[in-house]
Parts: sequence; C-alpha cells; structure tokens
Amino acid sequence: MEQNKVRIKQWLKDNRARGARLLQILVQEDSTRGNESAAQAIVIEKCRQLGLTLDIWEIGGDELKKHPAFCCDRQNFEGNPNLVAVLKGSGGGKSIILNGHIDVVPVGDEKNWKHDPYSGAIECGKLYGRGATDMKGGNVALIMAIESLIASRIRLKGDVIFQSVIEEESGGAGTLAAVLRGYQADGAIIPEPTNMKIFPKQQGSMWFRIKVKGRAAHGGTRYEGVSAIEKSLLVIQRLQQLEKDRNARINDPLFEKIPIPIPINLGKIKSGEWPSSVPDTAILEGRMGVSPEETIQSAQGEMENCLRELNENDQWFKENPLQIEWFGGRWLPGSLESDHPLMKELTKSFKEVRGDLPVIEASPWGTDGGILSNVGHTPVVVFGPGITATAHDANEHIILEDMFVASEIIALTLLDWCEVDES
Amino acid sequence: MEQNKVRIKQWLKDNRARGARLLQILVQEDSTRGNESAAQAIVIEKCRQLGLTLDIWEIGGDELKKHPAFCCDRQNFEGNPNLVAVLKGSGGGKSIILNGHIDVVPVGDEKNWKHDPYSGAIECGKLYGRGATDMKGGNVALIMAIESLIASRIRLKGDVIFQSVIEEESGGAGTLAAVLRGYQADGAIIPEPTNMKIFPKQQGSMWFRIKVKGRAAHGGTRYEGVSAIEKSLLVIQRLQQLEKDRNARINDPLFEKIPIPIPINLGKIKSGEWPSSVPDTAILEGRMGVSPEETIQSAQGEMENCLRELNENDQWFKENPLQIEWFGGRWLPGSLESDHPLMKELTKSFKEVRGDLPVIEASPWGTDGGILSNVGHTPVVVFGPGITATAHDANEHIILEDMFVASEIIALTLLDWCEVDES
Repeated sequence: MEQNKVRIKQWLKDNRARGARLLQILVQEDSTRGNESAAQAIVIEKCRQLGLTLDIWEIGGDELKKHPAFCCDRQNFEGNPNLVAVLKGSGGGKSIILNGHIDVVPVGDEKNWKHDPYSGAIECGKLYGRGATDMKGGNVALIMAIESLIASRIRLKGDVIFQSVIEEESGGAGTLAAVLRGYQADGAIIPEPTNMKIFPKQQGSMWFRIKVKGRAAHGGTRYEGVSAIEKSLLVIQRLQQLEKDRNARINDPLFEKIPIPIPINLGKIKSGEWPSSVPDTAILEGRMGVSPEETIQSAQGEMENCLRELNENDQWFKENPLQIEWFGGRWLPGSLESDHPLMKELTKSFKEVRGDLPVIEASPWGTDGGILSNVGHTPVVVFGPGITATAHDANEHIILEDMFVASEIIALTLLDWCEVDES
Repeated sequence: MEQNKVRIKQWLKDNRARGARLLQILVQEDSTRGNESAAQAIVIEKCRQLGLTLDIWEIGGDELKKHPAFCCDRQNFEGNPNLVAVLKGSGGGKSIILNGHIDVVPVGDEKNWKHDPYSGAIECGKLYGRGATDMKGGNVALIMAIESLIASRIRLKGDVIFQSVIEEESGGAGTLAAVLRGYQADGAIIPEPTNMKIFPKQQGSMWFRIKVKGRAAHGGTRYEGVSAIEKSLLVIQRLQQLEKDRNARINDPLFEKIPIPIPINLGKIKSGEWPSSVPDTAILEGRMGVSPEETIQSAQGEMENCLRELNENDQWFKENPLQIEWFGGRWLPGSLESDHPLMKELTKSFKEVRGDLPVIEASPWGTDGGILSNVGHTPVVVFGPGITATAHDANEHIILEDMFVASEIIALTLLDWCEVDES
C-alpha cells in the first residue's frame, strides 16, 4: 500500500507541467453556457487516451424535463454533451463519483481583467482565466488523480465514475441527467473551489426575478410619473433586511466563520429605456441561499411573504403589486454527517498529504451535490483547490500548487475508499 | 380683419375630421429615432399639397457637427430628412418660425398600453398613441393653422416658416441644422405639450451617464465582492439630495406651481449579467434639468462636485472613483421677457378664442427653443395642445378639442404677427 502511495506521489510530482498545460488549454476554451463543446472535447479526448469507458450524450428528453428537480430555462442542449468516463473496478470495493462541471459564468467587464479572460496565463504559480478556479482546476485535479492510478498500474476494486457535466452554473441539469441515466455511487467528491476546505454541508440556492412596476412620464415632469427605480429601492432594502433576519437564525458551528451563511445576492437590475423618461418597469434578478436545514420551498415562502407585506403596506404596490418568479438556477441543499466514512477517509488523506487537519465548514454556495445526494442518494463531500473569492470574479485564478495537492489527496482517498485490488 | 378671423374659424370648424385623420395617420407611423422617414413623408406630402416652398435635406456635415451646441451620438441621418416648408409673405411683415419635431420616444413596456402604441385610436374625443401629445398633435395644429390661412385666401406680409425636425428628443440636432441653414425669424412658436399653458421660459437639460464600479464575486460569498448595485444606492441618494438642494433655490414665480422645477431624472439603470454573481459595474443614465437662469456648464459642475465628494468620502469610491459622462441629449435653457410682443399677441389671441387668460409658466422641460433663441437669436414661446403628463408615458393621448383650439389661437396670432396683406 505504501508503495502505491509513493508511486502516485512520484507520478504527480513528475507530471505537474502536464497538469498545468491541461488546465491552460481548458481555460483557453470559452465554455460559457451554450458553448461548452470545445472544452468538453478536450476532456473527452483526455479520458479516451486514459482508456476510460466513455458515455457521451446530449441531455434532454421528457424524463429529465419533467423531473421535479429539473430547473432550467435552456431550450437547446445540442452539440454540448455531458460526459461520464468510468474507470471500472474489479469488484467488491466501494464506488465513487468524481463530479465537476465544464460550464463557466460570463467574464463580466473585460476591462477589469489584467489578462485576456481566456488567456490561461501563468504567473508566480497562479493560472489565470475564467473557469481556472470554478472549476476547471478541480476537474484537472480529478483527471490527474485518475491518471496517476492508471500510470502507476494500480487496480481498484470499486468503480471511479468521473463526470464532466454542463449546466451546473444554471441549476444542475447536467448532473441531474447523469443521475437519471443511472449513475449513483457509494460516495462522491465534487472539487468546487473550497480553498482546500472540506464542506460536508452544502447550502442550497435558487434564482429569483422580481418585477417592479412604475408609471412612465417625461423626466422633466417626473413628479407626474412613478419611478420603477425609486420603487425598487424599497424592495432592495426589504431584501437586505430579510437577509439579515434569515442569517441571524443560523447557529450551525460549520457556518461559524462565514460572514453571511445564506446570502441573498442581487445580481442584476435593469430598468428604463431612455434617460429622460421615468422608467415604468424594473427587473431585479438574484440568488437566494437556502440553509442545509430548510427546504427550497420554505425559503421561497419567506421571500414571497416579504413582498406580500410590501404589497399590502405601500399604496403604489397595493395597486401595482410586485411580482416574483423563481426561474433558471436552483440548487438543492445537501448535508452529510461529519463522521461519515467518506469524511473520515478524505480527512485522513488530507492530513497525510498536507500534515495539518482540514478546515471543515458548510459551503457558502450550492453545488450539484444537492442533486447527487437528494436525487441520486449518493453521499457527497465538496472539496477542491480553487479560490472561492475569485470564482465568478475578474482575474479568476487558481494556485497550481493547491491543484496538485488536491489531486494527491483525492488519489489517496480513492485508494482507501475503492480499495486496491492486489491480486 | 374680423372677416378674416371669421373665415379662419369657420374653416377650422369645418375641417376637424381632416385634422384628426391627419394626426391619426401620423401617429400610426412609428417615428422613433432613426425611423422618422415614414411620418416625415406624410408631413412633406401635406406641405407640398398646400403649395409651400419645401426645403428637404439630410442633416449632418462639419458645420453642424463642430458647432458647440451640437450634442448628438447618432452617426447616420441618411433617409430621415429635416423639412422646412415656407409660406412666403408679400413683404414688410414680421416673420415667424413654427417649429415641431417629428421624432418620438420609445413606447416602453407595451403591456402598459390599453391600445397598440401606434393605434391612433380615437375614444371620447381623445386620440391615443405614441407621439399624439409629444408632439404630432402640436404639428397638426400648426399645419391646420397654415391651411386655414391658405384655404381662406389670406395673404400675409411676413413669412411663415414651418419646420418639421428630427432629433428633438435626443438634443436638438435637427433644429440646430435648420438654424445653421439660415432659418431665423422675428419670433417662433413651438407647440410642445404645455396643456395649453404659455411658457416664455424654458428649462434646459442634458443627459448624464454615471459608471459605478464594484468587484465581482460568487453570489454565495457575496461578502468577498462589492456590489455595484449597492454602491449605486449611495449615488442615487446623493442625486436625490442634489435635486432637493437645487430646487430649493428656485424662486422664479413662473415656476411656482411646478412641484420640481428642475428635476434630476434617473431614467435608466443597468447592472449585472448573472443572478448569482456580485455585479461589478452599474451604469446609471438620466437627465438633469437646468434653470433658465443658469448655464449648462454650472449645472454640470454642481453634479460633478457631488460625485467628487462621494469619491473623497467613501473608501471604495476613493479607490474606484465614480465616472460621469455628459452624452447624448442636451437642450439649452431659454428665456423671453413676459412683455415681449409675441407674448402679448399670443395672449390676446388666446383670450379671444378661449375667453379666459392663459396660464403663464416656465416650462418644466427643455425644448428646441433653447437652440432657436440662443443660437438662432429668435424669440421663442412654447405653447401647445398636448397633455404634459402623458408625454413619454404609456397611453399617451391628446384631447382633439385642444388641438383645434390651439390651431385657432396660432392662426389668429399669425394674422396679427405677420400682418395681413389687404392689397
């Protein structure tokens, strides 16, 4: 066993440049929603070279679309497939799903980036670009872990089921499709950017869209209209209060160090068409966090109550009620006991590689783990090398050293979890 | 003279259906910016039928674009000409410009309209549609006034210079082009929607664009980013205070009944691309009113000082300063003495037709009058039949009766101002 570990460590040490290069070419392919194919093709080709059993399919179809956990406004999945690549075990060991998403969020204002957002530039041990941290770096850590086993000629008893899915950033339809295709396992690791922390609990979340009405008028007689922007301020302030109230109730020690355990993020506002008109409509869009201990439905009900309260207490809203829609992304919350065997194995490997004990927290954001655990009945741990703070941000980057360390921790965990077939 | 008036009144009375129909077909042509040609073609054909001397030209060229009062972000004027149509006088009388704009603002949210925004539907004496009030109704009042003179075989000594211009809603490049083409006169009437009030003073205005920076982050760890929407709230509140301060200083009795004499209208806000990202940029656009007693420059300076103050006092803005840009529309303020002869003639005709005295106020918005008076040195009065409150609003409409009454008041004013050639 020790020899296996030594071989894995050595291989990973010798192949850092290859890993960095793989991440670089992945980052250089823009894989925003609807454009996942080119990056996915690189992953597929890599898995083919490794000799994994490939399952490549375009998601969609009635079973998926009618599933209660399906939450997606995308019409067309053509040309941007899901991938599941299996390293088949010899039998008798525990199986594991290694899940990562290939889709990335848009780059925002390009002016805020010091390099081209898809440069994959490496500077001082950091690799820059959209998706470097969230989560192509995590995906590369998984692929290197699998390759280190294969290159070291180690045979496992349990199956290693690597998944490269689309749609995580928009509600998890890719992972849901994989679950419905029959992929379940005894455990799962999702290397989302956790700053090398281990997250047994995952915050759920969903998107909302609030429509605020105004009454248009010429800007020069703006007192004859009602500004949808001004009325939106009331809504924004009420959401800020709701966020405070909801977070004041969280007392789970796993959330202790998280400033806002279940945030309400207002991500978009759009109002008005003409500088000198009073805007007659405002559309607010955002993301509401859901605690691992509550349901999507109860959190939604709480926000709906707030808006109802505004509709009752404001004269304008009484006549022009606020409307809320839950659209696009929705991520189920998830929760694993801190003493689950997968937690123990991962923690042990972490200590073995890094020397210290991992920080164990609740994830401040939703992941596809909610679907894997709630729908796929697969115990999930989220643990990965990316930097939380740079996810979705300009100048997103990853510390390559962390990617290699995470890869090693995951590879050692696979040895223990799936068991080595010494025959 | 009395006989001339009787003939005019009679003709206008007999031709109301024609006037309403002309307005209807004008409203039915969408003449938003860049699409003015179809509506303008109707006006051109009408003026041709009346036998007026036509000057039809596409604006542009260096003299216009380099003029200090030129303020326009439109690149292409091709296919959407200006029109000046002159009823030549026999000589010896005072000339007058009758100026109206053919462009209209966008319709906003169509759902707020009870009819199609371009229906031109007539109900209970009101004609509905974008532009009915601002200001195709005013234009029809002018055309009917001119036609009533021609149909009554009345010859004037002074020239009547009818202008149907583009670009009023975006800064007055159409009227500026007409001024630079040499059109000046001893007086001008602009029938913008004043609710039949007479405005000798005109508020100026201009557009601003403020860029607010944030720092993107994943919405689930939004405390690691800085929301451009949240930072925008500080800017909006500061602009609200600035509006209060500036209006507290206005003590001109002509503004007495206007709730906000020189408003700051926030017409547009756009921030964020993704519900679950912290938005890294917000763009605020609006219109700032300028009092007839101040300059565009001093008003701009006041807003710039406010932003500078925010940049100095807020730590985030200190490092990421707010940026302001004065773009698109700009309307010079204008001011005519209340005892100017044109004011007297118009007031007299008003009393003669309506029996009561007109309300005389300062206009709560800028018009092309600022260009006619400041650049064209032509004394301007703004007076028209439209309903201020419905301009730029959903369900914009005009009371047809007011349009006919305004037409009569203007026709009688032409008799006095330009003088009838009795020879």
